[in-house]
Amino acid sequence: MGKLVLLRHGESVWNAEGLFTGWVDVDLSATGEAEARKGGELLRDAGIRPDTVHTSLLRRAIRTANIALDAADLHWLPVQRTWRLNERHYGALQGKNKAQTREEYGEEQFMVWRRSYDTPPPPIADDDTYSQVGDARYADLPPELMPRTECLADVVDRMLPYWYDAIVPELSAGRTVLVAAHGNSLRALVKHLDKIGDDAISGLNIPTGIPLVYELNDDFTPRKTGGEYLDPEAAKAAIEAVKNQGKK
Amino acid sequence: MGKLVLLRHGESVWNAEGLFTGWVDVDLSATGEAEARKGGELLRDAGIRPDTVHTSLLRRAIRTANIALDAADLHWLPVQRTWRLNERHYGALQGKNKAQTREEYGEEQFMVWRRSYDTPPPPIADDDTYSQVGDARYADLPPELMPRTECLADVVDRMLPYWYDAIVPELSAGRTVLVAAHGNSLRALVKHLDKIGDDAISGLNIPTGIPLVYELNDDFTPRKTGGEYLDPEAAKAAIEAVKNQGKK
Repeated sequence: MGKLVLLRHGESVWNAEGLFTGWVDVDLSATGEAEARKGGELLRDAGIRPDTVHTSLLRRAIRTANIALDAADLHWLPVQRTWRLNERHYGALQGKNKAQTREEYGEEQFMVWRRSYDTPPPPIADDDTYSQVGDARYADLPPELMPRTECLADVVDRMLPYWYDAIVPELSAGRTVLVAAHGNSLRALVKHLDKIGDDAISGLNIPTGIPLVYELNDDFTPRKTGGEYLDPEAAKAAIEAVKNQGKK
Repeated sequence: MGKLVLLRHGESVWNAEGLFTGWVDVDLSATGEAEARKGGELLRDAGIRPDTVHTSLLRRAIRTANIALDAADLHWLPVQRTWRLNERHYGALQGKNKAQTREEYGEEQFMVWRRSYDTPPPPIADDDTYSQVGDARYADLPPELMPRTECLADVVDRMLPYWYDAIVPELSAGRTVLVAAHGNSLRALVKHLDKIGDDAISGLNIPTGIPLVYELNDDFTPRKTGGEYLDPEAAKAAIEAVKNQGKK
C-alpha cells in the first residue's frame, strides 16, 4: 500500500490582503513561495519520494507543487491537475474583504459562511468580475457541474470521485502520492480519511507548507488518525496560531 | 488538424559557463528565465492557446514550460514529461568546458562531435560524476535504452516513438500541442517534419525562447516548410548570431 502526502499551498497575495479567494486564480506571495520551498525541503530531508503529483487548476497550488518539487529535485515527476482539487468556491464573497464582510453581515453570518459544513455563501453572478464562468480551463465542465458557490459538503462531493478514481488506484499500486491543494479541498479529504463528523470538521485547520503524511491500511484507512506532519512542532504552532486568531 | 508549437529552453547556467550539458540537469540562468517568460508572452499575444504540453525530464525544459505557461495564464494545462524529449546525451563530454575540449581535441574532432549526424562522442563511464545511471527519474528505463552517449541520429530514433504515440494522436484530435524541449530534441523533430537531409541538418539552429509554430496537413506534414516563428525578426537575428559565432 502506498503513502499519501498532503501539501497545502502557502500564503497567496489575497491571503495577505485579507480577501476571500475561492476559485479566483491569485498567485502566491513571496512568503507563500518560501513556504513551498520549505515544504519541498522537508520532503527531501525526510527521504520521501512521491511517484506522482496531483494539483488543482489554480496557480497557487500548481506553483506550490512546482517550487516544492524543484527544491526536492523532483521537478520531473508526472503531474495531473483537476478542478476537483480546487479550493472551495466562495460564491458572491469572492474578491470581497474579509473584515468588511464581517462588519457588513455580522460575526454570526460571517462564521456560518466560513465554517458551517452545509451552508454555502450566496451564489456569485455569472457577470461578476470574480466569476469563473467562461474561463477556458473549465470549458470541459458541463454547466451543471460548474459551481457558483460551495459549502464544505459540496467540496467533499466533488472531490471524492477524484480520490476514488485517480488517487486510490495509485496508492493501491504501492505508489507514494503527493496532493498539492487548498485548505478546504484538503480538509474535505482529511474529513473522509479520518471519518471526522460534519460538526467537528469546523475545528480542523491544516497548516500551510508542511507536508502531512498518511500511511494507509489495505482498506485505505489511515494507520494513524490525523497522519503525521513532517515538522510536527511547526504544525502545532501554526494550528495554535489559527485558533488564537479566532479568539481575537 | 491541430497545431504544433515548439519552444526551445533559454540559457542555462552551464550554457552561460560554456560547459557541455546534455543530460546533466542544470537550471536556467536568470537570462533563461526571462527568455521563458518572453516565450509565454509571445504565445499569449499571438492568441495561441495550447491544449496540452510536453516536456523532457530536465529542469531547464520543465521550468521553461512552467514559466512560459504562467506568463500566458496557462499554468493549468495538462502536461506530460518524457526522457524521449531530453537533450542529446553528450557522453564523456558532459560537464566538460567547450573551449578546453576544442583545444584538447582540435577544431575538426570538436566539430564532428558537435555537428556530425551520426558520430557520437565517446560514451560516459557509469561512475562519472556526470553520468545519469542510477538517477531515479530513469528507473523505468531498461538498461538497453539508457544512453551513455548519443549522436543526433540516436536522438531522432528515440524521439520519434513519442512523436508518433503521444503527440500525433493529440494533433489528429485537433488539439494545439506545445513541446518545450532542447536544441537537439527539437532539431530531431524539425528534421523529421521538414524532411531535412542528414548533412543539411547541421546547418539548422533553433533560437531559444521564441515559439515556432507548425500548421499541419492531414498527413502531418507542415503546411509551410520551417514553420513560423512568433517573433520572426528576433528569430532571424538569433540564427544569424549563431552562424557568425561559428565563423570566429
